[in-house]
Amino acid sequence: MRVRKKPGAMEALLAFDTVYIDAPMMHRGAWQQVFGNDAPIYAEFGGGKGSFIIEMAKRHPDVNFIMVDVITEVMLKAAEKAAKANVPNLRLIKLDLAFLDQVFAPDELTRIYLNFSDPWPKKRHYKRRLTYRDFLMKYHEVLKPDGWIYLKTDNQLLFEFSLNEFADCDMKMRAISLDLHSNPIPWNVMTEYEQKFSEMGMPIYRVEAQFRL
Amino acid sequence: MRVRKKPGAMEALLAFDTVYIDAPMMHRGAWQQVFGNDAPIYAEFGGGKGSFIIEMAKRHPDVNFIMVDVITEVMLKAAEKAAKANVPNLRLIKLDLAFLDQVFAPDELTRIYLNFSDPWPKKRHYKRRLTYRDFLMKYHEVLKPDGWIYLKTDNQLLFEFSLNEFADCDMKMRAISLDLHSNPIPWNVMTEYEQKFSEMGMPIYRVEAQFRL
Ligand SMILES: C[S@@+](CC[C@H](N)C(=O)[O-])C[C@H]1O[C@@H](n2cnc3c(N)ncnc32)[C@H](O)[C@@H]1O
Ligand SMILES: C[S@@+](CC[C@H](N)C(=O)[O-])C[C@H]1O[C@@H](n2cnc3c(N)ncnc32)[C@H](O)[C@@H]1O
Repeated sequence: MRVRKKPGAMEALLAFDTVYIDAPMMHRGAWQQVFGNDAPIYAEFGGGKGSFIIEMAKRHPDVNFIMVDVITEVMLKAAEKAAKANVPNLRLIKLDLAFLDQVFAPDELTRIYLNFSDPWPKKRHYKRRLTYRDFLMKYHEVLKPDGWIYLKTDNQLLFEFSLNEFADCDMKMRAISLDLHSNPIPWNVMTEYEQKFSEMGMPIYRVEAQFRL
Repeated sequence: MRVRKKPGAMEALLAFDTVYIDAPMMHRGAWQQVFGNDAPIYAEFGGGKGSFIIEMAKRHPDVNFIMVDVITEVMLKAAEKAAKANVPNLRLIKLDLAFLDQVFAPDELTRIYLNFSDPWPKKRHYKRRLTYRDFLMKYHEVLKPDGWIYLKTDNQLLFEFSLNEFADCDMKMRAISLDLHSNPIPWNVMTEYEQKFSEMGMPIYRVEAQFRL
């Protein structure tokens, strides 16, 4: 995602202190306390400007949602929208997913969404893709044993890569779709990228994956 | 596959008695004796006019090959080509795959190729697709525990359906490709359909799948 550096973005972000959590490591192992309830936690990794997770939080008030992204400017857009939407079951955190285990304890998450992750199309960059097996091992640690990863992308190479990483890591898969929007799917919440690419007529790929015990 | 009924096709086919096996049920549990060696047996289900399996038999003299199809006229074309090619490690049999277990005993096959199987695109016909779970259960029976199913198709819906059937049947998958010909693949032997569709610029899908023990 191309974003212009914006001076003062971090300060602006910090002002949204009902939705933006500044020192997420402090809540490791205690995220349920942040929300003040026992509901399961679903996280979006690389959530960008947040349309998806805000709409999900609205539709599913009995689930807690956490959006992770690494770019301050993007996070700020998400915080502005989230504050307006008034969704008490949503928090935003700034985190490079390489350090995921410093923010979440084992089994703390029930679901992970990976939506339109950066494809890193060059072969030599495959280790940066968020479905590379080293990332999957990190997700495995923080996901509950019966938790699922839900992935959507417009990128054929990333989808192919992800299916093979899931398969090589001996994960279960289900609901594989090579053209998500070919059928009406009322339960689907579109992301910013999904809106853009599906309007351009590009097929959207989707899969659900789960680690074996 | 559309084929014109040809009077006398069966008689013509019977004349190719070195390659065409007329009463395959008689060899159930004893296919190795047909070949007179201990080499593993790879079968193509729905082989059509046989280009693929004939070329495979040439390239892999230490493997035994069996092509299965249900249409006499198509089988005759394959028999004519096979006879010319002089491939002692190849046999052709006429069989509706619904009756697979009557021709092969448990564990008799080491690999199954499904190439460009009829897609049966109408939803209500999904049980006819050769990767429908009831067919998979039949394949499971005749395949050795470490055997693999290798599938290729140009048909997006059939590929998506097959991935989901493999996943739902808890099969292992590997080497998933959403565009087989995007890279050079010297080991790949093209089928008749593959030649036609890839020349038209259509992507070819491929996957390898294995049952868990
Ligand atoms: C292509 S955007 C997709 C945004 C949104 N999910 C959508 O579908 O519209 C990918 C997002 O992932 C974030 N991202 C990439 N690598 C990351 C990492 N290692 N840790 C956290 N976020 C990351 C980027 O900052 C960017 O906002
Ligand atoms: C679309 S053609 C593909 C031929 C070839 N594999 C290729 O890729 O060029 C499918 C073939 O499967 C055969 N077939 C379909 N259903 C079958 C069944 N139940 N048993 C055996 N063969 C079948 C058809 O007769 C046809 O020759």
